[in-house]
Amino acid sequence: MRIALGIEYDGGPFCGWQTQPGGGAAQDALEGALARFADAEVGVVAAGRTDAGVHATAQVVHFDAPVERAIASWVRGTNTYLPPALRVLWACSVGDDFHARYSAKARTYDYVLLNDPVAPAVLHGKVGWYHRPLDLEAMRTAAGMVEGEHDFSAFRDAQCQAKTPVRLLHAARVTLDGNLFGFRFTANAFLHHMVRNLVGSLVHIGAGKQAPSWMEELLASRDRRNAAPTFAPDGLYLSGIDYDGRFGLPRFRVPPPILGDRD
Amino acid sequence: MRIALGIEYDGGPFCGWQTQPGGGAAQDALEGALARFADAEVGVVAAGRTDAGVHATAQVVHFDAPVERAIASWVRGTNTYLPPALRVLWACSVGDDFHARYSAKARTYDYVLLNDPVAPAVLHGKVGWYHRPLDLEAMRTAAGMVEGEHDFSAFRDAQCQAKTPVRLLHAARVTLDGNLFGFRFTANAFLHHMVRNLVGSLVHIGAGKQAPSWMEELLASRDRRNAAPTFAPDGLYLSGIDYDGRFGLPRFRVPPPILGDRD
Repeated sequence: MRIALGIEYDGGPFCGWQTQPGGGAAQDALEGALARFADAEVGVVAAGRTDAGVHATAQVVHFDAPVERAIASWVRGTNTYLPPALRVLWACSVGDDFHARYSAKARTYDYVLLNDPVAPAVLHGKVGWYHRPLDLEAMRTAAGMVEGEHDFSAFRDAQCQAKTPVRLLHAARVTLDGNLFGFRFTANAFLHHMVRNLVGSLVHIGAGKQAPSWMEELLASRDRRNAAPTFAPDGLYLSGIDYDGRFGLPRFRVPPPILGDRD
Repeated sequence: MRIALGIEYDGGPFCGWQTQPGGGAAQDALEGALARFADAEVGVVAAGRTDAGVHATAQVVHFDAPVERAIASWVRGTNTYLPPALRVLWACSVGDDFHARYSAKARTYDYVLLNDPVAPAVLHGKVGWYHRPLDLEAMRTAAGMVEGEHDFSAFRDAQCQAKTPVRLLHAARVTLDGNLFGFRFTANAFLHHMVRNLVGSLVHIGAGKQAPSWMEELLASRDRRNAAPTFAPDGLYLSGIDYDGRFGLPRFRVPPPILGDRD
């Protein structure tokens, strides 16, 4: 039986999502807990691979259950063996045609940025930080320029293994609530470091170092060397995966208010 | 010259506020950083002593500067030597009659509680957790019963060194936003573990284990053995200290939205 799980994790203690030879990845923690609960080896496939320090409020994984268990016990039982930075939020029986990665129609990432002269303390590691004032409207204008289907080579990491640099960016939204800027990106898929590179260049524009039109120039250049440095992973959250409704996946719980809607 | 500092810290990495022989307290980190910046020993006095794991978004300390420095440099310079979980948000020159602890007229603590079947992951250590549904109105009624001047012995830890168990609780408010309950208490001063003990008993009532009137009975009993267990430190924040306006202390920045106003 194929089972899908909804996962939330704090990226801080993990060296990213993807399994590492020495362990220490979020995937290692999850597979280890599933193996202890099922008393058999379990390999999982995730919708999105997140880098070290990147969080997830709505990661989805699937696996083929090596043993039969009540569906609710895959939540409670697995959580018993997980470190507190990783929780299974729901479990759901799915057909064999469901694949956490290949069935995903779109992904959403949120980047949360504290804009304040002093760095975050309580939310250290949970939000990015920029110390000088940022222009919301300039960043909104620039974000609008990257929406649509484009070659995103200018925002692609050299390590990226994707076959094509073309992605369909459904939406790029910038919001502000108090001293927190929120950047939300929804695309069919993302290139490696694409969100952090987009945020880096938007902040460059927000700080007045470049005009909003620079975003269009970067995109057209298709050259990573022109864009701003990759932004810190601290404020990045994998916050949504879209699947066809026929799979009947449960909704995720209300995310932490750090990711709340902003105007 | 006497200087007041506004401080924010994540309680997770520290063994509480108060200095420990082996170090490791938030006070040790702050005094160490001040000493490096001033190149001289600096002892600080704080408005409130927080326990291990308890956070602060608005702690206030004072010290007598052993050297002269531009006031803004006490922020930037000290932050250079602090661990990321502790930040100085502002510095302000004050008269010798200012005392961070004795000049404080009131303190406010916020307790943030995730009410969800599954424990927090992203906000692990930053919010408390209760897995079964809680009745907002029952907790509001019970909270109203402890407002005012009372002998709070029933909510006082055995280790408490205060001379009297009588405190004036100006306000005890319970709010809800999505799956986060917020408990806010403002008093002239608090007894040891008083907020965590109040929250423990309110949650007991919210879960339907006792009627709201139990809160009044607990208070009248003046016996700690009757109340519910001390709640976890995870969701507790020292979030406000009131001083007379004549001291001219700056305002704190907007706190993390975890502590946002709720209805």
